[in-house]
Amino acid sequence: MDQVRPSAIRDLLALGADPAILSFGGGYPDATLFPKALLQDVFRDAIADPSGDPLQYAPSDGLPKLRAQIAALMTADGTPTAPEDVLILQGSQQGLDFAAKMLVNPGDTILVEDPTFLGALIAFAPAQPRYAAIPMDADGMDMDALEAALRATPSARLLYTVPDFQNPTGATLSLPRRQRLIDLANRHDLIVLEDTPYRHIRFAGDALPTLKSLDTQGRVIHLGSFSKILVPALRIGWAVAAPPLLEKLSLLKVAADTQTSTLNMAATSLFLERHDLWAHVATLRAAYARKKEVMLQAIRQHFPQEVTVTDPQGGLFTWARFPQGFDATAFLRDHALPKARVAYVPGGTFFATSPQPNHARINFSAQSEDRIRTGIAALGHCLKDHLSCP
Amino acid sequence: MDQVRPSAIRDLLALGADPAILSFGGGYPDATLFPKALLQDVFRDAIADPSGDPLQYAPSDGLPKLRAQIAALMTADGTPTAPEDVLILQGSQQGLDFAAKMLVNPGDTILVEDPTFLGALIAFAPAQPRYAAIPMDADGMDMDALEAALRATPSARLLYTVPDFQNPTGATLSLPRRQRLIDLANRHDLIVLEDTPYRHIRFAGDALPTLKSLDTQGRVIHLGSFSKILVPALRIGWAVAAPPLLEKLSLLKVAADTQTSTLNMAATSLFLERHDLWAHVATLRAAYARKKEVMLQAIRQHFPQEVTVTDPQGGLFTWARFPQGFDATAFLRDHALPKARVAYVPGGTFFATSPQPNHARINFSAQSEDRIRTGIAALGHCLKDHLSCP
Repeated sequence: MDQVRPSAIRDLLALGADPAILSFGGGYPDATLFPKALLQDVFRDAIADPSGDPLQYAPSDGLPKLRAQIAALMTADGTPTAPEDVLILQGSQQGLDFAAKMLVNPGDTILVEDPTFLGALIAFAPAQPRYAAIPMDADGMDMDALEAALRATPSARLLYTVPDFQNPTGATLSLPRRQRLIDLANRHDLIVLEDTPYRHIRFAGDALPTLKSLDTQGRVIHLGSFSKILVPALRIGWAVAAPPLLEKLSLLKVAADTQTSTLNMAATSLFLERHDLWAHVATLRAAYARKKEVMLQAIRQHFPQEVTVTDPQGGLFTWARFPQGFDATAFLRDHALPKARVAYVPGGTFFATSPQPNHARINFSAQSEDRIRTGIAALGHCLKDHLSCP
Repeated sequence: MDQVRPSAIRDLLALGADPAILSFGGGYPDATLFPKALLQDVFRDAIADPSGDPLQYAPSDGLPKLRAQIAALMTADGTPTAPEDVLILQGSQQGLDFAAKMLVNPGDTILVEDPTFLGALIAFAPAQPRYAAIPMDADGMDMDALEAALRATPSARLLYTVPDFQNPTGATLSLPRRQRLIDLANRHDLIVLEDTPYRHIRFAGDALPTLKSLDTQGRVIHLGSFSKILVPALRIGWAVAAPPLLEKLSLLKVAADTQTSTLNMAATSLFLERHDLWAHVATLRAAYARKKEVMLQAIRQHFPQEVTVTDPQGGLFTWARFPQGFDATAFLRDHALPKARVAYVPGGTFFATSPQPNHARINFSAQSEDRIRTGIAALGHCLKDHLSCP
């Protein structure tokens, strides 16, 4: 219990709620793009169902119809999936908690990207793991470094990765590295936890195969979510895994909370039946691609030259690197918040082993294009002032 | 992980879905009493909120407005509660998982009623506890037996109880025993997990004080739920506890699933703001009181004399005791299901330490009065046949 870290994410969610602060902090989708009218229709009709079933208890694995629909989405995305391979989760975050419960004993090593998703570190913490943090570049996790880590820590059993538009860096794992990752998993008896919340928010190029689709030995637990492609508020995520793993995840679901909301599952199922999810996602992709461009252009215009940012091919985030010695947490507290009235997530918390405080995660999906320009300009001026005479 | 029991509840939910079986198995509320029109209105308006907030992420402790409304409900029920004392959960079931994670190490003893709620045994299982099962009578847990168990197992730290209309027996813990339970908790350094899903479904008499309201040292974690008084499908439960316990539960919530569904919290909050929950609950109480009477009358008419049942003052269940040597699981499988086409929950699974197979939990809330009469008559004839020449 003492291993559970005070929640940086929770504090940031609170920060994002202050209307006086222009926040690039949270990983919030753009609320103006929520399909409200369509959601009103499917909730109205789910509630009206003469059986009353959408308001009643449901099987703990999830509504059979929704499991079949998710299996069809996965199959169309190149990952052949049967309905019984799908377990509905309380957001894909719940899959992180379950994977750690299932596979990690206190002191076991989890292999993670360096930096990695803060929410995963929080979910894994109750299992009391150690970490091996694998360096990344623009093509994702460095496979030579991973191989060396596996030789140094042969007992490591679980690897966690966000292969598409990673949180926080925005990097995407290249196809050759995906193939090599599966090969290493097979040779070193690893379970790979593939977390894909941003997978369908791609701005350019073609989708790469999921790790699950390359999996030859049932070693990949794939996590998906409707949070970024529909709305976060439903908390509908899912796991796809081979039967021996899925059966254990399913038992953990019963123990943890019995089931995800029946009504939210029923409404999501109706949405998928009646509406073209991919047409909606195409709108999101176009809007977020524009916002990413607006943000990068503003950064090029206003940020000091010595600050570099990534140019992701999708997702919600760019990752800024400040000069060595720069403390992004102190700058946020002492300058960005009180002077520029702008928030981001200081990068240090994303590193599992050795915090590198000269980074920040900057979200481009939540704010309007105008506010992105305003906020980045204010942040840039503040940065220039500080970096020229700190 | 190997401690997670195959889920009897899950199998029973599947059984209840077979339309050819008349099921008294699940703890389902009556779907014909769901306030559909009111729910349609609050979901429509929550989705339409111009801010988009009800469709977005939310603070992990729950929407502040809903926490305040639940605090007001608790206070009106005699348990003074502040909004910051309330943590929203994914059903109160999630509180069982969190309490075990927080307080139980492998091999630790949990004190439970004998019999106790099967879902609690499933939730506690991943923590790998031992159990001390405390005998019950019509007034709930036997306090002399509890005191003896505390002397025999001084390291026991957690006690789990359903004090109102217990699952599965329907028994209610008397006021003197509630007071003595708190006294024993104080003297033996116990945390008391008070689970109250049926508390407001009372047919007769006045409500007894919650254990939380009698708590003098911040030792009671109170769990509440809207599943039985509104609809189960929203999965909105809550914990009320003293700050040191609530802060730990709150960290476990972030780690487990980040948050409960924002939309379900927002819609529940609107429901409480606009409608009289207690007027709706009064309708439920009257309807379930009638159903209980219909069931007990049918049982008196059709069951063999040697089968006894409890007459609960509230809740959803009566508890049947068959003659010694009767195996309610085998009878269900070989007679009740194939011949009478009627289901109940065999009682053996509710005992944490020594299963007593000559019991059954029979639910009276889910079926119509006519089907209760039909089903109990069929079950009674089948029982008479079997008990006269087994």
